[in-house]
Amino acid sequence: MGQINKLKILNDPIYGFISITNPLLYDLIQHPYFQRLRRISQMGLSYLVYPGAHHTRFHHALGCMHIMQRTIGVLRFKGTEISEEEENALCIAILLHDIGHGPFSHAMEHSIVEGISHESISLMFMEKLNTEFNGKLDLALKIFKGEYPRKFMLQLISSQLDMDRMDYLKRDSFYSGVAEGNINSERLLQMFTVKDDLLMIEEKGIYSVEKFLVARRLMYWQTYLHKTSVAAELMLTRVLKRAKELLALNREVTASKPLYFFLNNKIGPEEFTSDILVTFSQLDDFDIISAIKEWQFHDDFVLSELSKSIINRDLPKITLQSKKIDKPTLLTIRQEVAALYNISEKEARYFVFKGELKNQAYNKAEEPIHILKKDGTIEDVAEASDQLSIKALSKPVTKYYLCYPKVLLEKAAF
Amino acid sequence: MGQINKLKILNDPIYGFISITNPLLYDLIQHPYFQRLRRISQMGLSYLVYPGAHHTRFHHALGCMHIMQRTIGVLRFKGTEISEEEENALCIAILLHDIGHGPFSHAMEHSIVEGISHESISLMFMEKLNTEFNGKLDLALKIFKGEYPRKFMLQLISSQLDMDRMDYLKRDSFYSGVAEGNINSERLLQMFTVKDDLLMIEEKGIYSVEKFLVARRLMYWQTYLHKTSVAAELMLTRVLKRAKELLALNREVTASKPLYFFLNNKIGPEEFTSDILVTFSQLDDFDIISAIKEWQFHDDFVLSELSKSIINRDLPKITLQSKKIDKPTLLTIRQEVAALYNISEKEARYFVFKGELKNQAYNKAEEPIHILKKDGTIEDVAEASDQLSIKALSKPVTKYYLCYPKVLLEKAAF
Amino acid sequence: MGQINKLKILNDPIYGFISITNPLLYDLIQHPYFQRLRRISQMGLSYLVYPGAHHTRFHHALGCMHIMQRTIGVLRFKGTEISEEEENALCIAILLHDIGHGPFSHAMEHSIVEGISHESISLMFMEKLNTEFNGKLDLALKIFKGEYPRKFMLQLISSQLDMDRMDYLKRDSFYSGVAEGNINSERLLQMFTVKDDLLMIEEKGIYSVEKFLVARRLMYWQTYLHKTSVAAELMLTRVLKRAKELLALNREVTASKPLYFFLNNKIGPEEFTSDILVTFSQLDDFDIISAIKEWQFHDDFVLSELSKSIINRDLPKITLQSKKIDKPTLLTIRQEVAALYNISEKEARYFVFKGELKNQAYNKAEEPIHILKKDGTIEDVAEASDQLSIKALSKPVTKYYLCYPKVLLEKAAF
Amino acid sequence: MGQINKLKILNDPIYGFISITNPLLYDLIQHPYFQRLRRISQMGLSYLVYPGAHHTRFHHALGCMHIMQRTIGVLRFKGTEISEEEENALCIAILLHDIGHGPFSHAMEHSIVEGISHESISLMFMEKLNTEFNGKLDLALKIFKGEYPRKFMLQLISSQLDMDRMDYLKRDSFYSGVAEGNINSERLLQMFTVKDDLLMIEEKGIYSVEKFLVARRLMYWQTYLHKTSVAAELMLTRVLKRAKELLALNREVTASKPLYFFLNNKIGPEEFTSDILVTFSQLDDFDIISAIKEWQFHDDFVLSELSKSIINRDLPKITLQSKKIDKPTLLTIRQEVAALYNISEKEARYFVFKGELKNQAYNKAEEPIHILKKDGTIEDVAEASDQLSIKALSKPVTKYYLCYPKVLLEKAAF
Repeated sequence: MGQINKLKILNDPIYGFISITNPLLYDLIQHPYFQRLRRISQMGLSYLVYPGAHHTRFHHALGCMHIMQRTIGVLRFKGTEISEEEENALCIAILLHDIGHGPFSHAMEHSIVEGISHESISLMFMEKLNTEFNGKLDLALKIFKGEYPRKFMLQLISSQLDMDRMDYLKRDSFYSGVAEGNINSERLLQMFTVKDDLLMIEEKGIYSVEKFLVARRLMYWQTYLHKTSVAAELMLTRVLKRAKELLALNREVTASKPLYFFLNNKIGPEEFTSDILVTFSQLDDFDIISAIKEWQFHDDFVLSELSKSIINRDLPKITLQSKKIDKPTLLTIRQEVAALYNISEKEARYFVFKGELKNQAYNKAEEPIHILKKDGTIEDVAEASDQLSIKALSKPVTKYYLCYPKVLLEKAAF
Repeated sequence: MGQINKLKILNDPIYGFISITNPLLYDLIQHPYFQRLRRISQMGLSYLVYPGAHHTRFHHALGCMHIMQRTIGVLRFKGTEISEEEENALCIAILLHDIGHGPFSHAMEHSIVEGISHESISLMFMEKLNTEFNGKLDLALKIFKGEYPRKFMLQLISSQLDMDRMDYLKRDSFYSGVAEGNINSERLLQMFTVKDDLLMIEEKGIYSVEKFLVARRLMYWQTYLHKTSVAAELMLTRVLKRAKELLALNREVTASKPLYFFLNNKIGPEEFTSDILVTFSQLDDFDIISAIKEWQFHDDFVLSELSKSIINRDLPKITLQSKKIDKPTLLTIRQEVAALYNISEKEARYFVFKGELKNQAYNKAEEPIHILKKDGTIEDVAEASDQLSIKALSKPVTKYYLCYPKVLLEKAAF
Repeated sequence: MGQINKLKILNDPIYGFISITNPLLYDLIQHPYFQRLRRISQMGLSYLVYPGAHHTRFHHALGCMHIMQRTIGVLRFKGTEISEEEENALCIAILLHDIGHGPFSHAMEHSIVEGISHESISLMFMEKLNTEFNGKLDLALKIFKGEYPRKFMLQLISSQLDMDRMDYLKRDSFYSGVAEGNINSERLLQMFTVKDDLLMIEEKGIYSVEKFLVARRLMYWQTYLHKTSVAAELMLTRVLKRAKELLALNREVTASKPLYFFLNNKIGPEEFTSDILVTFSQLDDFDIISAIKEWQFHDDFVLSELSKSIINRDLPKITLQSKKIDKPTLLTIRQEVAALYNISEKEARYFVFKGELKNQAYNKAEEPIHILKKDGTIEDVAEASDQLSIKALSKPVTKYYLCYPKVLLEKAAF
Repeated sequence: MGQINKLKILNDPIYGFISITNPLLYDLIQHPYFQRLRRISQMGLSYLVYPGAHHTRFHHALGCMHIMQRTIGVLRFKGTEISEEEENALCIAILLHDIGHGPFSHAMEHSIVEGISHESISLMFMEKLNTEFNGKLDLALKIFKGEYPRKFMLQLISSQLDMDRMDYLKRDSFYSGVAEGNINSERLLQMFTVKDDLLMIEEKGIYSVEKFLVARRLMYWQTYLHKTSVAAELMLTRVLKRAKELLALNREVTASKPLYFFLNNKIGPEEFTSDILVTFSQLDDFDIISAIKEWQFHDDFVLSELSKSIINRDLPKITLQSKKIDKPTLLTIRQEVAALYNISEKEARYFVFKGELKNQAYNKAEEPIHILKKDGTIEDVAEASDQLSIKALSKPVTKYYLCYPKVLLEKAAF
């Protein structure tokens, strides 16, 4: 019997096939820290709105690696030298860039841990893996931390037009069925070029960039910030908050060991040690959903009600508007809910609340997307566009929401 | 504020949009029994091989309903009368036809319950829902049970070319990225016709049927019976078997309440009462994976090892061949594993075992796919085909597998 | 033997299947006037740049009819009453809206005829067909001419978001392979609604409209106004102009009968009688290309050179810029070409010339795209958008081109 | 101003982008002999049945070159050494393999020339080009003629699973919209491997090969041998035959110069000199259609009637059956048509005729598709398949047709 073959080809509905081209990449993918990403939904609870959107962080990370490989090919074809070591480092860095995500991706950043970004946890994982793999991730880490002089390499991993965005827009559009968010990643990467170690887009690619930005904006308002999926995620953070609150009051709340640990301890940047990283690595969507399933039958009305709302997709009503929500209206509804549910007004906050959603398709304050013109000059894409359209996309948009139980809708008085 | 609108349009990456066309369908979809299907993987653990294959029974059921609506439209266009009541019943029946599936679909039929098919559980759910909905499912049930005289209605729900197969082949091919399994469901349903209340395919659709059967055969060997995914499912049934065994020995094994119930009680057709159906309705993939995650740290070597194998996708080696596995070889390997792991030979059976896989693309013994020829005569598709190819596809194919730990591969002696 | 079946289903790579749902539509499609559209390229000579873009006006017209049927279905579902007679009229009108196009679509409007739009020729064809079909096109004509009170019907046929644009953007993007121009016509038509007999877009469709406008803008600059395809069309108008000029000088120029007629006679709106319409109906791309193929061997240098340029795709150099082309530069190049080719400076104008290209993604001066807001008010999409992006798209963009023979590029002096 | 850049990227709706990777390939593509392929329909007159099928030999040849490049990449990845010179030769050979096709591809082989295959004309073109390009096509010619020792190179160009078939099945399926004929060329080429300089398919690719053969069979019966498109091609050969006949009788028949030459001279293998090749190179679909358009108004009833039938798509009735057509029936119909049209019985043969269509999905007599099994042995795919299905596909299928004017259908007596 033979060796275990570490060169693999995986089927991917989007790119056709994804190749794992060297044993180190294979071993990283096989590592339990990375396999955990199979159990973390890429789009949080969006599958409650888009039933096809069950794809995972695992698949997204592989997709990023694939288009990184394609991009490296294009840049080399155009004359940019990229050594094999650099290629590997780029693939590793993009593969691991999101490894620090907690359950349900973004939703957890403010309820499981406090004040710790997934990026900083990704970095901790990468450093831990670097120790395990005897320093083979050194260069990847250097690039990831922005310490490598060839700046375009970091830009490929993290910028306003990076592999991450190119894959997630395409993938999320594909799986959700929101076909309008589809971007032409193959075309975009054909437009990449490097000048003075900076990433640029060829001038003829300017309409493609515009299309990319419009698709991104559309995906935000139609998908990521879709009001029902926002409502679901708000329920999710609230149910965990309530569980923490009950634990703080010494009420019994069952959960898996790693989840229990995070609910029962306040973990901020100070407390997040390497040991806690190991506990964190055991946490995924399954801990959360399993706990919520059980909490449906908890005797705390708030915990139970919020849990049922998620499990049975019996989500609250949410309204979006361009003006701020009026405080008195909020308070009136809250009182009504308190009366209806026979709970305190403080508890009613779990069911009636307001907030805001923001999006900016292109951020002029951040490092710009550079257009390399035919005459050799470089321009910010917002300036290079022949219309004001990209400038217009740079304006941040804010919308305000109000959330309250649907049961109110069925009452005549309201 | 308005009413809750029960006419919905959902995005579907495959069909574009799926419409929920009446309030009863909406209420059934909203029911917790049906929402549970959101937490049951359509392709079991196949996502360990095809990272895109995370779609659910929920989505499949909606897809089936969609092509049922399309098919009804085609049949009406061709002159078959179908009343609105019958249309509703067909949609309900296809929507609920798989509601009885346990966690990870097929894998669980022989480990959670014993000797109970998911079809019979589906029927129990439908009857329970019929009571809740005051008899509105009467006609759907009649069709589903084969008691309705217009036989083509049952054939649309369950036959060798039904809505179920048309949707799952298309959907599984789509999400897994095994593009070759893609079938042209739109073309196939354009070919349907009804004669004497029996479902037929127009003669010119014969190549489409042949293509459908070949696609199905390919999906079986390349996807459903892919050796790695078979290995994963075998690990899954074994880990549950071990948990049951330990419980029977009064060892402590943690699990969610509903899972614990089924592990701790032997439930056959006799025992499966309406109360147990309610417990069953609380069971889904999340109970299983959460339990296995915890069992990784159990002090029983077998339980822990099997659990890690699944969670970290560190699956056993599996070989496929056309001849039966030789018993002495099996025993030798088993001894070796017993020695290596320091476990009994009986326990080694959890790691070293053999079995067989069977598939038959077209079953001549079952009710045939009928071709309605231009001259008005009817023929079995296997006879109507101008070559022997469909006859050839009727031959069942059996392959034999042997499974053992990969660690053996790395030892020189072997 | 049976009747000729006039209900047909056609394969379409874009929509899957297109149905011809009544005998009148079938007979119109079968009419030689309509069959002629099979021989007229939808995108003119763009296939010289995009080798897949060989689709025809015929196919586009069928596609328009298909999405008209889909849209009628959606509007009826939403409660707008549309009678069967109106449905037929809408299908007829959209089917025939482009029947007046000459060879290579737009390129011919100013070289074959003079000062006659294809729309007015379409109307003449429709009236002629109405006579042949005994008035069965009355209502279609009424709608087409804007004489029918239900204004949304005209808007479906001709407005800034009509069936025509929806099909040609999708189709041209599909066949050219410029995937970024793809629009989600199915989504867009789901967003249509009618209020007070005016066509509206539901508020939630606003991002889809924005995406549609951006896709349209991109298709203009990347495809329709692609500089090489512009160069090819300019050669085409010039070669015909030269042929006319030679004929006026009594030089022999061979051409098919209908083409010869139009080259040898100046046909403006006054002269375009019903008889001439019959001659026009015999003219298509084949007359043009066949003539040009023969003209390659003509002894007039200009005619021969222009002809070879098209047939062998040996197109001139064309440069695009945002500032007007400098007259002296033009003259210098023209002199150089005259010297090089040994022709007069007047003749050199056939090879060296300038001009401008214009596009406006959304025209605020025309009838706007209306958004129907949830509160029942109506707004122009340019105002309703939450950013200034659609306003920005309303600004017309002009680019200036200069065209000259590639041979100049190879000379050192230049 | 710069050089003319000879490295090009073309949009392709199927593969996304096609790259022209060296200047020699660019120059060959630019050559008028190759540009002529832009004016030759890949699927003959099939566009009369599938309105999207207007793609050309030009596009197909580029597609073949693209998958040749992909396949070379895969084979190199698997360890087969292919030099840069060999790579170029393979690309050239596949690019030019079909350059000898006449107008409407296959339809013309027996009406324009007599007893000369397009392959032998391709070879003549390649040799002529080799002279023009100073021997740079030497190796390509060697491979094409089967004189190069590394046999897999010829197999890539011409065998039962070559680049040609892989591209045309995919492309024809794509443009016609016959989605069921779609093959997964990317998957297939990933399965290629070379052993002892012979082309093989890896064992795990066996289902993909089976699917490929079934798709090919389906495309034959549903598309290439679709009865209406067969009828159209039969009309085409007949109209040319009639034109030749009239010319032989000294009747006036107009046609373009190159077409006139071939109609007026009997050109067999002996006569086909290098000069005639030049005339042949001026012939394409446009000559044929333009002539037929004019012949509609010819005073010979037969020529005119056949011509109108094609131009207005007013095709004859054609019936297909598995038994031979009965002679007396044929004669009866022929007499009836002679009477109806007032023509001689000999002339009626142009309108009433019979014939046969044959297809064999896999030919066991030809060089087989080789499967390389995991144990290193090699097997014919027909033997390696686990069912008899591929063997079944090896049986040739024959169908018999009868063609006659539709007008007969409308007469009561018949």
